[in-house]
Amino acid sequence: MKEFETIAAVATSLGEGGIAIIRISGKDALKSVANIFKGKNSRDLNDIKSYTMRYGHIIDKENNEIIDEVIVSFMKGPKSFTAEDTVEINCHGGVIATNRVLEEVIKQGVRLAEPGEFTKRAFLNGRIDLSQAEAVIDIIRAKTELSMKSALAQSEGRISREIKALRHKLLGIIAHIEATVDFPEDDLEETTSEITGSQLRSVLEEIDKLLSSADEGKILREGLDTVIVGKPNVGKSSLLNALLMEKRAIVTEVPGTTRDVIEEFISLDGVPVKIIDTAGIRDTEDIVEKIGVEKSKEKINYADLIILMLDLSRELDSEDLEIINYIRDKKYIVLLNKSDLPNKLDKNMLKDLNFQYIMEISAVTGEGIEKLKEAIKKLFFNGEITSKDAVITNARHKQALIHARQNCRAAVEALKNTFAIDLASIDLRNAWMNLGEITGETLEEDIIDKIFSEFCIGK
Amino acid sequence: MKEFETIAAVATSLGEGGIAIIRISGKDALKSVANIFKGKNSRDLNDIKSYTMRYGHIIDKENNEIIDEVIVSFMKGPKSFTAEDTVEINCHGGVIATNRVLEEVIKQGVRLAEPGEFTKRAFLNGRIDLSQAEAVIDIIRAKTELSMKSALAQSEGRISREIKALRHKLLGIIAHIEATVDFPEDDLEETTSEITGSQLRSVLEEIDKLLSSADEGKILREGLDTVIVGKPNVGKSSLLNALLMEKRAIVTEVPGTTRDVIEEFISLDGVPVKIIDTAGIRDTEDIVEKIGVEKSKEKINYADLIILMLDLSRELDSEDLEIINYIRDKKYIVLLNKSDLPNKLDKNMLKDLNFQYIMEISAVTGEGIEKLKEAIKKLFFNGEITSKDAVITNARHKQALIHARQNCRAAVEALKNTFAIDLASIDLRNAWMNLGEITGETLEEDIIDKIFSEFCIGK
Repeated sequence: MKEFETIAAVATSLGEGGIAIIRISGKDALKSVANIFKGKNSRDLNDIKSYTMRYGHIIDKENNEIIDEVIVSFMKGPKSFTAEDTVEINCHGGVIATNRVLEEVIKQGVRLAEPGEFTKRAFLNGRIDLSQAEAVIDIIRAKTELSMKSALAQSEGRISREIKALRHKLLGIIAHIEATVDFPEDDLEETTSEITGSQLRSVLEEIDKLLSSADEGKILREGLDTVIVGKPNVGKSSLLNALLMEKRAIVTEVPGTTRDVIEEFISLDGVPVKIIDTAGIRDTEDIVEKIGVEKSKEKINYADLIILMLDLSRELDSEDLEIINYIRDKKYIVLLNKSDLPNKLDKNMLKDLNFQYIMEISAVTGEGIEKLKEAIKKLFFNGEITSKDAVITNARHKQALIHARQNCRAAVEALKNTFAIDLASIDLRNAWMNLGEITGETLEEDIIDKIFSEFCIGK
Repeated sequence: MKEFETIAAVATSLGEGGIAIIRISGKDALKSVANIFKGKNSRDLNDIKSYTMRYGHIIDKENNEIIDEVIVSFMKGPKSFTAEDTVEINCHGGVIATNRVLEEVIKQGVRLAEPGEFTKRAFLNGRIDLSQAEAVIDIIRAKTELSMKSALAQSEGRISREIKALRHKLLGIIAHIEATVDFPEDDLEETTSEITGSQLRSVLEEIDKLLSSADEGKILREGLDTVIVGKPNVGKSSLLNALLMEKRAIVTEVPGTTRDVIEEFISLDGVPVKIIDTAGIRDTEDIVEKIGVEKSKEKINYADLIILMLDLSRELDSEDLEIINYIRDKKYIVLLNKSDLPNKLDKNMLKDLNFQYIMEISAVTGEGIEKLKEAIKKLFFNGEITSKDAVITNARHKQALIHARQNCRAAVEALKNTFAIDLASIDLRNAWMNLGEITGETLEEDIIDKIFSEFCIGK
């Protein structure tokens, strides 16, 4: 195991909680904390056994003042999250208390951990591979139970095992080809080409299967970007509230109330759907509102799904048409809102539109809201959603699999021509490298640094 | 020790953290967790020793699926926060992971803890008194290091000790008086009246001293309510940003940008100052803005200090005068903003105002900001602020001390008339009860319930 500097950070989410944890990892972890810890009968903390705890106080060494009442626990490496000696200080929650204790630890010569650095240590020390490390942050950020489950499966090594098996198969094929190239005989080359070709097709099938899970995987992890759009006062905020069943957005009768973009998650059978309420898209002289309209247009451009709201109780006007024109090329659902009011909208005007679903609702009475949820589900998920199979939730993994697929396909082509059989070997080595990027075995250090920098502090 | 139901809650602040803790307290705590915990080699968790930890997984009993990877620690009562058997499950941070583990614990027949219920257990089990329990929540909510220190001192029993000593003295005086009443002799009554009178004055002095700390104590705990007020576009949001040295409020050149009330804390030498930026107070037709103006007026009514901003680069107008009129009876500082622009304001018009300080600043260049901070400090704190003495930070404690003082004063009056000496005894018993409310010894159960209900969940 390599030896790194000792690091520390607050490992719990900062805020008003009953307890907070400062985590310290590295060879000086115990010594540093022992230095500022005062237990009962002044027992030396350096004697603490692994997987036990001590009650006491953290002391300001300069003036001997008590900083906080704490419980300290010790996990001796390699049996810890980082595989290094790890001390956790369990102190009073609250921002000030937590930061004061952390400050005192830092004074002992311990360095503040960078985001994701504890997990990075676990990776660098060989306790977990890269895809398992990435799963750790997915567990923390999970928006629904289903995304949590797939992240947990990944952290337990489900993806890693499949990738390792694929790489093992590729190595076998490569060895076979290279043996042929080294001892060339015409008929041997032909047999090799046949055998390896069929082995390679089975690898490609597995890669395809993993890749086919990636779209659902992305949604599982990040949620479905859904933007509610429509002209001012058509009922966008009311719809958001109806979906959330609580008063999140301020609803008034003044057009242009929603200046900021509001984002919320709802869970459709365990799938996180990110619903974004936006300012209406209208020409406005109000500078502040103008910024809001620009933000809305940006959100529309990146959305997976648009919910276009029209007002059943009025005729279509130029503003509606402008919006319809703006979203024409996106996947969208048309909601005819205010079904509780007299109907004045000419539906014939809508028949040429390219929408996925059209339905009447009343955001105020709640009529049609369930149908809308069903429609969203049908649009993105065919059949039941489960977490039984390995699911690719990570864009980086998807990219690596796509590259591996390209290289395997090139190898299949190369094998068709027995004279070029050694070229196949190069393609397959590349595919083997591509897959290794997922587990981190063949990844450049700076890319690894970048991946961990997206973690939160304290993990 | 009484026996209560076993309870559980998330003890860390909810959010994206590396670790979260589920705390379970009560006689079934260990059994319940052992039921859903799977450690290495399937070792029974029921065998765990106090102050040790185990690594393993929390399992969904229905389908044997893994819910999360955890570390479980055990603190056997009475050596725990609640003085009951306590188990802490250290699981992956993140809202979903944490809630899934808690859910599984609850399924074992454990009840969800009410806000403050763990601390309430510590109180009901006699481990801490009420003022120490209240300090726990103050530590968590501390806004600055100084408020944290005074809360910590209170949690270690500093207030409790002073109150107990006072109550002890009062009991002595009562005993002396009652002995006199039971064996009445004229000269004895006179001596008693003299001796107890002087003892009582010393008790009163100590109560006065504690009460004199209460104003600073309130500010230490809750911060100084400071409201920035002025007409639209005078530079209120810019001042807030200058004080915070970051872009918190959106600053534009459109009057009426700030619709919501924005609150922020700044720390002046460890004292939390709550700065509230408000919508300008102007007559407006805009409904949304109107709500903002109403909110501003409400904030002004409750503020400790008003910062009135006027625009040096313009003449005073009727809107300014309306605001000045509105805050006339409050404690306020006048800031003449935009000192960087040509000066057009006639300062003679301000000379009859009842302000505490007047100063020129430029919120944009930062000129005068330090002087403003100094003025706020001087207005509320005479001399250096320290946390050496016991400080009354709690409004409930202050109220109890005021009642005790009233009763002691009544006793002093009664003692002047030797015929009414037995009345003094009744007053002193009341004072003794008043002080007991601080430590919780003489407080009704429903009031205790109310106090703990203001805690956060998980503490």
